[in-house]
Amino acid sequence: MPSPKIIRQLMATFLVALCGATGAKVVIAAPNPEETSPVRAPSLIIAGAPDTDWRAVRPENLLILELPSGPVTIELAEQFAPGHVANVRKLVTQGFYDNLAMYRVIDGFVAQGGDQSGQRETGKAKRTIPAEFTTGAIAADKFNPIPGPDGYAEETGFSGGFPAARDPASGKTWMVHCYGSVAMAREEGADSGGTDFYIVIGSAQRYLDRNTTVFGRVISGMEAVQQLARGNGPGGLLAEPAVNRIASARLASQLPAAERPAAQVMRTDSASFAELVRSRRNRPESWFRYRPDHTDVCAIGVPVRFSGN
Amino acid sequence: MPSPKIIRQLMATFLVALCGATGAKVVIAAPNPEETSPVRAPSLIIAGAPDTDWRAVRPENLLILELPSGPVTIELAEQFAPGHVANVRKLVTQGFYDNLAMYRVIDGFVAQGGDQSGQRETGKAKRTIPAEFTTGAIAADKFNPIPGPDGYAEETGFSGGFPAARDPASGKTWMVHCYGSVAMAREEGADSGGTDFYIVIGSAQRYLDRNTTVFGRVISGMEAVQQLARGNGPGGLLAEPAVNRIASARLASQLPAAERPAAQVMRTDSASFAELVRSRRNRPESWFRYRPDHTDVCAIGVPVRFSGN
Repeated sequence: MPSPKIIRQLMATFLVALCGATGAKVVIAAPNPEETSPVRAPSLIIAGAPDTDWRAVRPENLLILELPSGPVTIELAEQFAPGHVANVRKLVTQGFYDNLAMYRVIDGFVAQGGDQSGQRETGKAKRTIPAEFTTGAIAADKFNPIPGPDGYAEETGFSGGFPAARDPASGKTWMVHCYGSVAMAREEGADSGGTDFYIVIGSAQRYLDRNTTVFGRVISGMEAVQQLARGNGPGGLLAEPAVNRIASARLASQLPAAERPAAQVMRTDSASFAELVRSRRNRPESWFRYRPDHTDVCAIGVPVRFSGN
Repeated sequence: MPSPKIIRQLMATFLVALCGATGAKVVIAAPNPEETSPVRAPSLIIAGAPDTDWRAVRPENLLILELPSGPVTIELAEQFAPGHVANVRKLVTQGFYDNLAMYRVIDGFVAQGGDQSGQRETGKAKRTIPAEFTTGAIAADKFNPIPGPDGYAEETGFSGGFPAARDPASGKTWMVHCYGSVAMAREEGADSGGTDFYIVIGSAQRYLDRNTTVFGRVISGMEAVQQLARGNGPGGLLAEPAVNRIASARLASQLPAAERPAAQVMRTDSASFAELVRSRRNRPESWFRYRPDHTDVCAIGVPVRFSGN
C-alpha cells in the first residue's frame, strides 16, 4: 500500500495535471496533522517523557549476566516466548550458567553462550523445549505497527517494549533480530533449544527471524558483550572459551530488593514512543540535510533508563 | 513495482481464476530459471569463487589504522568520494592521525576519531572540504541492484565492492551506512568535513545516508574497533581519549611491497556475488525453516580475503 505521503504526492500530481494547464489554483488535500506537526529531537522526547510513559521491568524478567568486562542486563520477553523464559528462569535460579562461557563469538554477528559440553545437569529445566518462533497470543491492540516497507515481514512494530513483526493474515507475531536481541540457539534438524543463547552483536540479523526463538533483549551492557574475545576456530568457536567466562547469571528477583537494578523501559504504546518513531523517520534537528521519511524497526531503539533504588 | 515473484503469483492467481471453474489445466508462466535454480550456502559460494571473481584492493585505497587492540584495514572508495579520499590520503601521508585518538565512541552507533582539538596542522590537506553526500559519476552499468523493498532509498545494490543506493530518477548514487562503513563527521551548519571520521559499530545507521559523506568501509579488524573504550561524557566523548590512541594511520602504498596486506574483495559484479545475494535471500541450508525471499543491502556482506604476499 502506498504511504500516506506517496498518496498525497500522487494526489498533488493528479491535481497539477488536472488544473495546471488552466492555471487554476491547486488545492491539496489537507495533510494528516499527526504526520506534519513538529516533532522534537529524540533526546528531548526521551528526556521529557512523563513517568506514565515508562514501565518498570519486572524483577523476574530482568536477567543479569556477569561477564569479564561488566554486567549485562537482559529483559526477558515472557509474552513472546513463555516456554523459553520459564526454562531460562529455572536454569538461572539453579546456577546453571555460573562459570560457563560465551564460547562462540563472531564479530558483526552473534555472541553465543551456555553449556558447550552439553554435560551440565539441567535439573528442573529442560535441555530442549518446543520452539516458539512465532506466537499468536498477542492481542491486536498490544501491537503498535510502524509504517513500512519492510522486506522481511508484512508488518513491523513494537509490542510490550520489544521490536517485533506480524503477519496480518495469520495474526502471528514474532520478535525480530535487532542489535542486542537475545535468542535461543538450536541444532540442525531440531525445532527447539533450551539452554544455549546468543546475542546479536552487529547488524540486525533479520534472516534469522522465525528460524529461532527470540526471548529477550539486552537493555544495558552491550559494551561488555562487545569486549568479549572473538573466536577464531570453525564457526567462531573460541580455543579457550574461559576468557569469556560467565561469572554468574541471576534474575533481579533473586536479589535483595535494594540491590535490584531499577530498570525502566519506555512504553511502546505511549505518546512519547509514537513521537519518537516519527522523529526517527524525519529527524527534526537542523543538522540533517536529508530526511528519508522512513525508519527501520531495528533503528528506533526502545529507550531504557535506570533510576536509583 | 511488484517483484517478479509477486508478478508470477498474480499471474498464477489470474490463470486459476480464469481456468479454475472450467477444470482446464492451469498453465503457469515459466519461472525465471536464475531465481529458482539451486543456490549454494554462502560459505560454499565464497570458498568456491574463482580468482577472477575477486579483485585486489589497490594499495593507495588500503588504509591501516593501528588501534590499541590491533590493526583495522579500511578500503577507501575513491569512486564515491574522490575529494574525501584525496584529502585523507594527504593527511595520512603527513602522519596527521598518528597519536590522535578515537575520542567519541557510542556503543551500537559509531566510533569517531581524529583531531578533537582542531589544532593539528593539516599541511597540504584541508580541514573542511566540499560534501560528497551523493555522486552522479557512477555509470549505470557499474551499479548492480538487488531486489527491494528498501525504506530508505528507491533502489539499493552494490558498486565496486561497496553497499550503495541509487535514485533512478536523478541517477545519483551514494554509499549507505552499514556495519563497518566509514564516513566523515561534520559540524552543524557545514555541508563538509575533512579530518574526523567515524566507523559504524552497531546497527546500520541508514538515517545518516546522504547526510554525511561515506568514503570507505572496514574490510578487517572490526573486532579491534569494538574493543575501544566507550565514552561516558556528553555525546559519547571520552574523558581520557588517549586510551583509544591511534598509534598510526598508513596507506598500504606507503609500505614496502612485501609488507602490504594482500586484501582482496569479491567483485560485486561477479557471478559469485550474484549467487551470494540469492543465497542470502533464501538460505539453502536445511537448518532454515523460514526463508524470507529478501535480504537487506547491509545484511549481505561483501566477502574479503587475505592471501599471503
